[in-house]
Amino acid sequence: MASRNRKKLAELHRVLDAAGVSGLTLLSLDDVAPFDEAPETGATFEDNAVAKARQAFRATGLATVADDSGLEVDALNGMPGVLSARWSGTHGDAAEKDRANTALLLAQLRDVPDERRGAAFVSACALVHDAGEVVVRGEWRGGIAHEPRGDGGFGYDPVFVPAGSTRTAAELSPAEKDAVSHRARALTALLPALRELAG
Amino acid sequence: MASRNRKKLAELHRVLDAAGVSGLTLLSLDDVAPFDEAPETGATFEDNAVAKARQAFRATGLATVADDSGLEVDALNGMPGVLSARWSGTHGDAAEKDRANTALLLAQLRDVPDERRGAAFVSACALVHDAGEVVVRGEWRGGIAHEPRGDGGFGYDPVFVPAGSTRTAAELSPAEKDAVSHRARALTALLPALRELAG
Repeated sequence: MASRNRKKLAELHRVLDAAGVSGLTLLSLDDVAPFDEAPETGATFEDNAVAKARQAFRATGLATVADDSGLEVDALNGMPGVLSARWSGTHGDAAEKDRANTALLLAQLRDVPDERRGAAFVSACALVHDAGEVVVRGEWRGGIAHEPRGDGGFGYDPVFVPAGSTRTAAELSPAEKDAVSHRARALTALLPALRELAG
Repeated sequence: MASRNRKKLAELHRVLDAAGVSGLTLLSLDDVAPFDEAPETGATFEDNAVAKARQAFRATGLATVADDSGLEVDALNGMPGVLSARWSGTHGDAAEKDRANTALLLAQLRDVPDERRGAAFVSACALVHDAGEVVVRGEWRGGIAHEPRGDGGFGYDPVFVPAGSTRTAAELSPAEKDAVSHRARALTALLPALRELAG
């Protein structure tokens, strides 16, 4: 994964293991060639995922999977979307940003009634290698809670209640999340291309 | 106007004067019957304008014009939209909220290039009286600056650069703003109905 995010790399590991794909060695960017990542300034998750994967492929010469993901809230016309990670404009460590982004989202939706609190986590995953590129999208529908709950996951997980669940994404185990999450769905859609690569 | 905002009432006065409409007495809600305004929880500017005008009409029995307006930013899929006034979730006086909302918007758009900083001010104006209802929409296209400029106007005026202008809306005189603004356009579209009422 063209990411320094170990949680995303572990997720790819689990998806590949579950699918019985072997013959691939997964490396974090930190293991390979530290370089400045492209800023995520595209208009879509797909644009950003492809840009990151291309940059890492150019820097390393290795087949690269990159992810860009975020939360699309219906009452915000699909925003925060590609701005999910910097919605509050806050700087600081990841946990601090997560708290500020989540608090802002809840404040913005304070007067929005339950029937208009629908949302989706979206992940675009791009695979770039010397024979071509693939980009796929996975979605996970749900709604926005009125208060954060749970300590698992990251980002907006504590306020996202998956459709059919009463718990937030931050209250699910990693295995429960893998079974349905946006990123797992996107990575699963990449499996045919990854199998070919492992060929 | 079903508003405690004297600036909006003055704008309606100017539009009516310029159009030569006489025979109407304009009262602020504060002059008539102080009551709790309906919260602006609709999904559209039109919903909110009609709800406010109906509430004021029911409370006073007088023909009522109400406005709901905000800023639609292209790179935010049309948000802050109906959430413009509480985008940052900040409480406090109007000037404080304006500063917080504007600062948040600029932070969210920090990495968005000029060609994707398009935006529009939008106003829906509703007229409710005993013979019926009319609701109209006015738009004012432009883009979002990188820094606030100017002391005039209110809300997002200091960061809104009207199409064809190099100044922000907060750097225009009231007369310049009236000639092109979203609210003036909406009020102008109400003129036929207001003339009928004055008739």
